[in-house]
Amino acid sequence: MKHRHDRQRPVRPGTAPGTISIDKDAPRPVIEVIQFDHESLRRLQNISPDAIPQVADDSVTWIDIIGLGDKKVIQQVAERFDIHSLAMEDVVNTHQRPKLEAFDDHLYIVLQMPSRNGSLELEQISLFVGKNYVLTWQERTGDCFDPIRERLVLPKGMIRTHGNDFLAYALIDAIVDAYFPLLNQYSDALDEIEDQLTVALPQQPVIQRLHHLRSEIRTVRRAVWSHRDLLASILTYDGDLIGRDARLHLRDVADHTLRLVEMMEISRDSCSDLQDLYLSTVSLKMNEVMKVLTIIATIFMPLGFIAGLYGMNFSREVSPWNMPETHWYYGYPMALAIMIGVAVGMLCYFRRLGWIGQSASN
Amino acid sequence: MKHRHDRQRPVRPGTAPGTISIDKDAPRPVIEVIQFDHESLRRLQNISPDAIPQVADDSVTWIDIIGLGDKKVIQQVAERFDIHSLAMEDVVNTHQRPKLEAFDDHLYIVLQMPSRNGSLELEQISLFVGKNYVLTWQERTGDCFDPIRERLVLPKGMIRTHGNDFLAYALIDAIVDAYFPLLNQYSDALDEIEDQLTVALPQQPVIQRLHHLRSEIRTVRRAVWSHRDLLASILTYDGDLIGRDARLHLRDVADHTLRLVEMMEISRDSCSDLQDLYLSTVSLKMNEVMKVLTIIATIFMPLGFIAGLYGMNFSREVSPWNMPETHWYYGYPMALAIMIGVAVGMLCYFRRLGWIGQSASN
Amino acid sequence: MKHRHDRQRPVRPGTAPGTISIDKDAPRPVIEVIQFDHESLRRLQNISPDAIPQVADDSVTWIDIIGLGDKKVIQQVAERFDIHSLAMEDVVNTHQRPKLEAFDDHLYIVLQMPSRNGSLELEQISLFVGKNYVLTWQERTGDCFDPIRERLVLPKGMIRTHGNDFLAYALIDAIVDAYFPLLNQYSDALDEIEDQLTVALPQQPVIQRLHHLRSEIRTVRRAVWSHRDLLASILTYDGDLIGRDARLHLRDVADHTLRLVEMMEISRDSCSDLQDLYLSTVSLKMNEVMKVLTIIATIFMPLGFIAGLYGMNFSREVSPWNMPETHWYYGYPMALAIMIGVAVGMLCYFRRLGWIGQSASN
Amino acid sequence: MKHRHDRQRPVRPGTAPGTISIDKDAPRPVIEVIQFDHESLRRLQNISPDAIPQVADDSVTWIDIIGLGDKKVIQQVAERFDIHSLAMEDVVNTHQRPKLEAFDDHLYIVLQMPSRNGSLELEQISLFVGKNYVLTWQERTGDCFDPIRERLVLPKGMIRTHGNDFLAYALIDAIVDAYFPLLNQYSDALDEIEDQLTVALPQQPVIQRLHHLRSEIRTVRRAVWSHRDLLASILTYDGDLIGRDARLHLRDVADHTLRLVEMMEISRDSCSDLQDLYLSTVSLKMNEVMKVLTIIATIFMPLGFIAGLYGMNFSREVSPWNMPETHWYYGYPMALAIMIGVAVGMLCYFRRLGWIGQSASN
Amino acid sequence: MKHRHDRQRPVRPGTAPGTISIDKDAPRPVIEVIQFDHESLRRLQNISPDAIPQVADDSVTWIDIIGLGDKKVIQQVAERFDIHSLAMEDVVNTHQRPKLEAFDDHLYIVLQMPSRNGSLELEQISLFVGKNYVLTWQERTGDCFDPIRERLVLPKGMIRTHGNDFLAYALIDAIVDAYFPLLNQYSDALDEIEDQLTVALPQQPVIQRLHHLRSEIRTVRRAVWSHRDLLASILTYDGDLIGRDARLHLRDVADHTLRLVEMMEISRDSCSDLQDLYLSTVSLKMNEVMKVLTIIATIFMPLGFIAGLYGMNFSREVSPWNMPETHWYYGYPMALAIMIGVAVGMLCYFRRLGWIGQSASN
Repeated sequence: MKHRHDRQRPVRPGTAPGTISIDKDAPRPVIEVIQFDHESLRRLQNISPDAIPQVADDSVTWIDIIGLGDKKVIQQVAERFDIHSLAMEDVVNTHQRPKLEAFDDHLYIVLQMPSRNGSLELEQISLFVGKNYVLTWQERTGDCFDPIRERLVLPKGMIRTHGNDFLAYALIDAIVDAYFPLLNQYSDALDEIEDQLTVALPQQPVIQRLHHLRSEIRTVRRAVWSHRDLLASILTYDGDLIGRDARLHLRDVADHTLRLVEMMEISRDSCSDLQDLYLSTVSLKMNEVMKVLTIIATIFMPLGFIAGLYGMNFSREVSPWNMPETHWYYGYPMALAIMIGVAVGMLCYFRRLGWIGQSASN
Repeated sequence: MKHRHDRQRPVRPGTAPGTISIDKDAPRPVIEVIQFDHESLRRLQNISPDAIPQVADDSVTWIDIIGLGDKKVIQQVAERFDIHSLAMEDVVNTHQRPKLEAFDDHLYIVLQMPSRNGSLELEQISLFVGKNYVLTWQERTGDCFDPIRERLVLPKGMIRTHGNDFLAYALIDAIVDAYFPLLNQYSDALDEIEDQLTVALPQQPVIQRLHHLRSEIRTVRRAVWSHRDLLASILTYDGDLIGRDARLHLRDVADHTLRLVEMMEISRDSCSDLQDLYLSTVSLKMNEVMKVLTIIATIFMPLGFIAGLYGMNFSREVSPWNMPETHWYYGYPMALAIMIGVAVGMLCYFRRLGWIGQSASN
Repeated sequence: MKHRHDRQRPVRPGTAPGTISIDKDAPRPVIEVIQFDHESLRRLQNISPDAIPQVADDSVTWIDIIGLGDKKVIQQVAERFDIHSLAMEDVVNTHQRPKLEAFDDHLYIVLQMPSRNGSLELEQISLFVGKNYVLTWQERTGDCFDPIRERLVLPKGMIRTHGNDFLAYALIDAIVDAYFPLLNQYSDALDEIEDQLTVALPQQPVIQRLHHLRSEIRTVRRAVWSHRDLLASILTYDGDLIGRDARLHLRDVADHTLRLVEMMEISRDSCSDLQDLYLSTVSLKMNEVMKVLTIIATIFMPLGFIAGLYGMNFSREVSPWNMPETHWYYGYPMALAIMIGVAVGMLCYFRRLGWIGQSASN
Repeated sequence: MKHRHDRQRPVRPGTAPGTISIDKDAPRPVIEVIQFDHESLRRLQNISPDAIPQVADDSVTWIDIIGLGDKKVIQQVAERFDIHSLAMEDVVNTHQRPKLEAFDDHLYIVLQMPSRNGSLELEQISLFVGKNYVLTWQERTGDCFDPIRERLVLPKGMIRTHGNDFLAYALIDAIVDAYFPLLNQYSDALDEIEDQLTVALPQQPVIQRLHHLRSEIRTVRRAVWSHRDLLASILTYDGDLIGRDARLHLRDVADHTLRLVEMMEISRDSCSDLQDLYLSTVSLKMNEVMKVLTIIATIFMPLGFIAGLYGMNFSREVSPWNMPETHWYYGYPMALAIMIGVAVGMLCYFRRLGWIGQSASN
Repeated sequence: MKHRHDRQRPVRPGTAPGTISIDKDAPRPVIEVIQFDHESLRRLQNISPDAIPQVADDSVTWIDIIGLGDKKVIQQVAERFDIHSLAMEDVVNTHQRPKLEAFDDHLYIVLQMPSRNGSLELEQISLFVGKNYVLTWQERTGDCFDPIRERLVLPKGMIRTHGNDFLAYALIDAIVDAYFPLLNQYSDALDEIEDQLTVALPQQPVIQRLHHLRSEIRTVRRAVWSHRDLLASILTYDGDLIGRDARLHLRDVADHTLRLVEMMEISRDSCSDLQDLYLSTVSLKMNEVMKVLTIIATIFMPLGFIAGLYGMNFSREVSPWNMPETHWYYGYPMALAIMIGVAVGMLCYFRRLGWIGQSASN
C-alpha cells in the first residue's frame, strides 16, 4: 500500500534537540557555487564542502546544495556558515511548514517547491540569506531555478547588478510562480470532470478522480496559504538583510501569492460544486430508472394477472360457474379488450403524472 | 473544450520581473484623449502615442487606451507617464485582483468591469491617477463610461468643475454600478429556477443551469468583495492625489459595494437553498414513485400467484387430491372472491399506512 | 412571475451622484408635524412643505413624511433642512442597509421597519436627528409609531420631558421591538412544520413552506444583524446630538438587538435541523417502502414460479418423463406443501434480518 | 401544541422604557434574607419587603427573592436598593442573555440556571452585588444554592470569613457547575443513540430523539458560551465591588466555563457525526435491501417466463410447429435443466459482482 | 455500556473551592526524585513524601509523582511546595484543558500525554516549574519520559548543563512529540479505509470504523490546538522562571505544535472526504443495482405476459374468436418471434439509454 498522507519521518520522541538524523534514502548532497559581481561570474559544480570559496564583500555567492543524505557534509557546511543546530534540524527533517526565522546574522526561509509528475510532490527548499551570500538546500535534483541561472549569465541582468537579497527574491519568485502552471492543470482537470458529469451518468473512476483531485487541491491550497503568510512575514521583517529594492519586488511576489490563494479557493469551491452536481445528477438518474421500472411493472403486472386468470383450469363440466368466460362466444376478444384498456389507462395515468412526457424529453 | 476556469496566461516561471509579454490575441491599442477645464473641452480620437497632448496644470487630461496588443505603444505611453515596470506588468497581465498601489506621483488602481453577453466576463480596467491626469487601460472596446463622456460635454456638470480625482471617482462609480444590473439578472434567473423546481420534477438542464449560475455568482461575489476591499483601501489612502470632495463621494461608492456584497450573499444563499430544495423534492418524488410500484406489486403479485395456482395441470383422474378445487361447484366464484379479498385487504393496509391517501392528495 | 428577490431599482450606471430619481409607483408624500415642549403639543396633519413650522430652540419638532412619490416636495424639505444630496439620494433609493452617517449638523440614520402581511416586507425609515428636530421619511402609510404618538400626548411622559434625542431613541426602539412579534411568528411556523414532519411523511407543500420560511428568516436575520451594527455605531458616536440619557436608553436597545440576533440564530439553526430531520425521515420511510416491496416480491416470485412450473403443458402420453408429478397420487398436496415451505422459510429469513419485526413495530 | 422555541413574552412595541409588566402566571415572590459576619448568622424566611433588615457595614446581607409575580413587592425592593428601572425591566422580562451591567453603586449580573426534568429549562437568576449585600431574584423555587446555604452555617467556612463578593462568587460558581451534570446526561444520551444506530437499522423514534437532543444541546451550548463571555467581562471589570480574592476564584470559574464550552463543542460534533452515521447506515441498508430484491427478481423472472412458455396452449394437432417440445421424450427434464442452468448462471454472475458474498458476510 | 465521551467526574455543584476530592479508583502515588548538577546525579525511587530532599540552589530537583489516589500524600507534597489549593484541585480533577497559570513563585502547566492502546487515552500531566525544581504529577504509570531519564544520566547532556527550565522544556517537548506517531497511525488507518472504499462496496464495519476514527481525530485535534495555545502563552510569559535558552527551544516546540495542528486539519478533512466518497460510491452502486433490476424486469415482464396470453384456456370449440392463434399453422414460431422481438427491442432501448454499455464497462 502506498502512503498517500504526508507522513512525519519517525523521530523517536524525547530525542535531544538539534539532533541531525539523516534519512537513509535521501540522495547524497551535490554542491554547486555561483559567485558573481557586475563584471564576472564564476561557477563551481560538484565540489566538496572544503572547496566552497570564501564569501567576499564585493560579490554575491550562491551556494546550492542538492541532496540531504550525508550527515558529515551537511554539518561541515552548517559550521562553515554558523547555522544554529535547531535550524539545521529543520533543514534535514523536511515536511516543515513554509516559515521565516530571523537569526542574528542570517534569515532562514523554508519554502515548498511544487512538482507534479503523476502525483503531486512538494519539495522543501531551505534558504539562508546572510551577508553577501545565499545558501539553498534542496531535497533532490530538479528545480525551477534554471531560468535564473540563465539570467545570471547575462552581464546586465537585474540580478547581476543587485545584491544577494535580490537573488533571494528571484529564487522565492521562481518557486511561487511554479504554482501557476499547477493550478492551470487543476482547472483543466476540473473542467474535464465537469464535462464527464454533464454528458452521462458518472462512472466510478470519475468519482475517485474527483476525490483524489480534491485532496491534492487541498494540499496545494494549504501550501499556497502558507506561502502567503510567509511572504507577509518577510515583508514585515525590518532587518537590513533585505534592501528596499528587493522588498519592493517581494511585495509583488506577495501579490502573486494572494492571487494564488484566490485561484485555489475557486478550485476548492469547484470541487465541492462538482460533488453536488454529481449527487444531483445521480439522484435524478435514479429517479428516471425507477420510473421506467414502475411504469413497466404497473402496466404488465395487471396484464399478466388477467392472462393468468384466463389460464386457470376450472373445468366447465363440473359447474356452469367455473370459468364461463372461456366459453362465451366473444370471450377472447373481450379479454384482449380489457387488457388493452388497462394498458391505455395506465399510460394515461402516467402521462397525467408527467412521468412519460418527462422521461421522453430527457 | 472551452475553458470555464479563469486561467493564468502561461508566463514562464523565473522570467525577469517587469517583463511585458504581450498576449498575441489582444486587440491593438486605440488611444483617445479628452482634455477639459471649466470652459473648454478637447477630444482627440484614435491618435498615436506621440500625439498625446502635454498634461496641463489648469486642465484635466483623461487618456483612455483601449486594447493591449502592441508592446511598443504600451511602452511609449508607460515611459511618457513614468510608470513603474512592475505596474506595467500588471496592466498587461490581466486577471489581477482589484487593488490599489500608491506610487510616489500616481496611484495605480485595478478594477474589474463586468459584462454578461451569454457568459460572464470581467474586463480588467487599470486606472492611473496622477497630477491633473487620469490614465485608463482597457482590454477591449465596450465599456460603461459613455454616460460619463456625455456628462463631460455639459459645461456645468460636476466633473467639469472638479479636478481629475473627481473624474477618477466617476469612473470607479460607473464600474461599481455596472454590477447592479448583473445582480438583477441573477435574481431573475434564480426566481425562474425556483419556479421550475416547484412546479414539477426538475430536469437535467435545470440542474446544470443552477450549477453554472452558482459558479458565476461565486465569481461575481469574489469580484464584489475585492472591490469592497479596494474601496476601503482607497478611503484609507491619505495622500493628496484624492481631494476631500472626491473622497466624500467615494465613501458613497464604498457604501454601494457594501450593498453589492450583501446582495451577492443573498444570491449565494439562494443558490444553496435551491440545491437543498431540489434534493428534498427529488427524494420526495422518488418516494412516491416507489410507493406506486410497491402498491401495484403488492396487490398483483399475490393475485397472479393465485391465478397461477389454479392454472396448474394436476390431473384429477389420477388422484382425488389433485386440484379438487377445480372440480368444486362454486370453485371459480370462490377463487375470484379470494382474489378480491386479497386486493381489498392490501388496499386497506396501504390506506392505514397512509400511502394511498397521501399519493392521491399530492 | 412575482419577484421574490430584493431588487435594486434600475438606476442607469454612470448617473451623476446625488440625482433624485423618483419611483413612479411610490405614494405621494403626506407631511405631519408634531411640535411639543413640557407644556404644550401642536399637531399639524397633511400640510404642505411650506407650512412646516420653524424649528424652535425651546421645543422639539418631529416632521414625519410618509410617501416618497413627489420630487418637488422632497427637494423642498431637503433644502429646508439643509440635507446633503447624497443622503437624499439614499432616502429616495430605498433598499439601503441600516446605517448611520454623521453630518456636521445632523445624523442620518437608516432603519428597516418589518411588517408581515402574507409576505415579509421591510420598509426603509430614514431618520434625521438635528438640533431640536427629528425628521422621518417613510415609504408608505402604516408604521409602529402609534404608541409613541399616544405617549406624546401625555404631558408627563418621558418623551415630553426630554429632548429630541430621546424622541429619536423612542422611534428606534419602536422599530427594533417590532421585530419581536415577527420572530414569534417564525417560531410558531417552525414548530408547526416540525409537528408535520414528525407525524407523517412530509408533503410537497411542507417542503416549500420550509424553503420559503428559510429564506424569510435569512432576510430578517440579515436585517437584525445590520441593526445590531447600527446600534453599535450609534453608541460609539461621540457628537453632542445624542445626550447621555438617550445614550443610556439606546444601550438598552442595543441589548435588544443582541437578543434578536440570538433568536434569529436559533431560528436559522432550527430551519437546517428541520431540513435534516426531513431528509432522515424520508430516507427511513423509503427504506420501509422498499422492504415491503422486497418482502412481497421475495415471497411471491418463487411461489409464482412453482405454480407456473406445474402449469406447463408437457403431455404424459408422449413420455413418462414429462411432468410425472402431475400424475402422482399426492402430487398436489406436495406442491402446496412446497409453496408453504418456501413462504415460511422466507418469512423466517426476513424475521432473522430484523425486517419484519421492525416494519411491524413502526 | 406545546411551544418548543424560546418565546419572547409579548410586550407591545413602543411601550415606555422601564415599564415593569408582570407575567400573570409567575409565582408570587417569597423573600428570604441571610445576614452574617464571622461570628453570627441570622436567617429570615418568608418575610415582607418592609421586614428586610438594614444592610450593615460589618456584615454581609443576602436577600434572595423567589418568584416575580407581584409588581408592588418588586418595586418596593427595587426602590429600597435603588435599582435603575431599565435593570428592573430586565429582571422581570426573563429570557435575557447572561450579561454584566455595571451601575455606579452596584453590579447587575444575569445568569441562567439549568435544570432538566423531562425537558431542559433555563431559569434566569438576576444578581445584584452592592456594598455589603447580594440581592438575587429567581423565577421560581428550586435552585442549586443549597450547598452554599449549608456551608454558610459553618462558622469557619470561607464564605463566612470573606466579603459579599465572595458570596457572589460562590453563587455564580454554583450555577456554572450546575451545567456539568447536564452535560454528562447529554453524553450518556448520545452514547445510547450511537449504540442504537450501530446495532440495527434506526427507528423513527431514534431520529426524533436525536433531533430533540440536538436542539437542546444547541440551546445549552449557547448558554454556556454566554456564560463564558459573562465571566470574561466580570474578570475585566475593574471597579472595587469585587475584591482580589474573589477575582482569583472567579478566574477559576471562568476556566470552568471554558471547559464547559469545549465539552459542548464535543457534544455538538457528536450530534452531527451521529446524523452522518445514520445516513450512511440507512443508505447501506437500502442498498442491501435492493440487492436482495434484485437477486430474487433476476433469478425468478426468467424462470417464471420459461415456465410460462411451456404453459402455452398451442395445440399440436393443428401443426407440428406448435409446441413440439411438449411432445419430445425428454422435453420436461430438458426444461428443468434449462431452468436450473439459468438460476445457477445468475447466481454465479451475482457472486462475481460481489453481491452475494457480501450480503452473506453482513 | 462503555462510556465513549469524556466525562466530568461528578463533583457536587456548590462544593467549597479548592476541595481535593480523590477518585477512589486512582492508583496510589509513587514518588521518584532525581537531583542533579553538572557533576553528580542522585535518583531516589518510591520514597515517602517526607523523604523528598531539600531543593538546593546549585542543583536541579525533579520530583515525579505517579498516581493521584492518596489525599494525604498529595496534600503533604502540596504544602511542601506551597501550591495554591485551586491549582491542587485542578491537579486532582483531571480532564483539565492544557493551560498555563503563573503564580508568584512557580508556573503551573497542564499538559495531555496521548497514548493509544486499542483506544485513545489522554493522560493529564501537571507540571510545576519553580526555582531549581520541577514537580510533575501523572495519573498513572507509563509515560514518554524515559529517553529524558536516559539522557539525564549522560554527564555532558544539554539537560545536565542547563537549569530546571531546560528540564521542563524537555518534558514538554517529549509530550508534544508523542503526538506524531499517533498521527501516523491515523494516516495509515485513513489510507486503509480509503482502499476499502475504493475496491468494493463498503461494509457496515468500515462505516463504523470511520465514525470512530473521526471522533478520535476530533479529540486529538482539540488537544493539539490546546497545546498550540498553551505553547503560545508560555512564549508570551515574561517572568524569569524560564530563561532565554529554554525559551528559544520552546519556540521550536511551538513550531512542532503548529505542524501537528496542520496535520490534524489534513486528517480531519480526509475523514470528511472519505465520508463523501462513501456516499458517492453507495449512490452509484445503488444506481447500478437498480438498473440491473429494471433491465431484467423490463425484458421479462412483457415476455411473461405474452407467454401467459397464450396460456389462456379459451376453448376454440365454443367460438372461432377464442384463441385462434393457438390453431394457426405457424402460431408457435410467430409467438416465439414476437418474444424475441420484444427482448431485442428492449435491449436496444437500454443500449441507447447507455445503461447496458455502462454497466458492462464497470
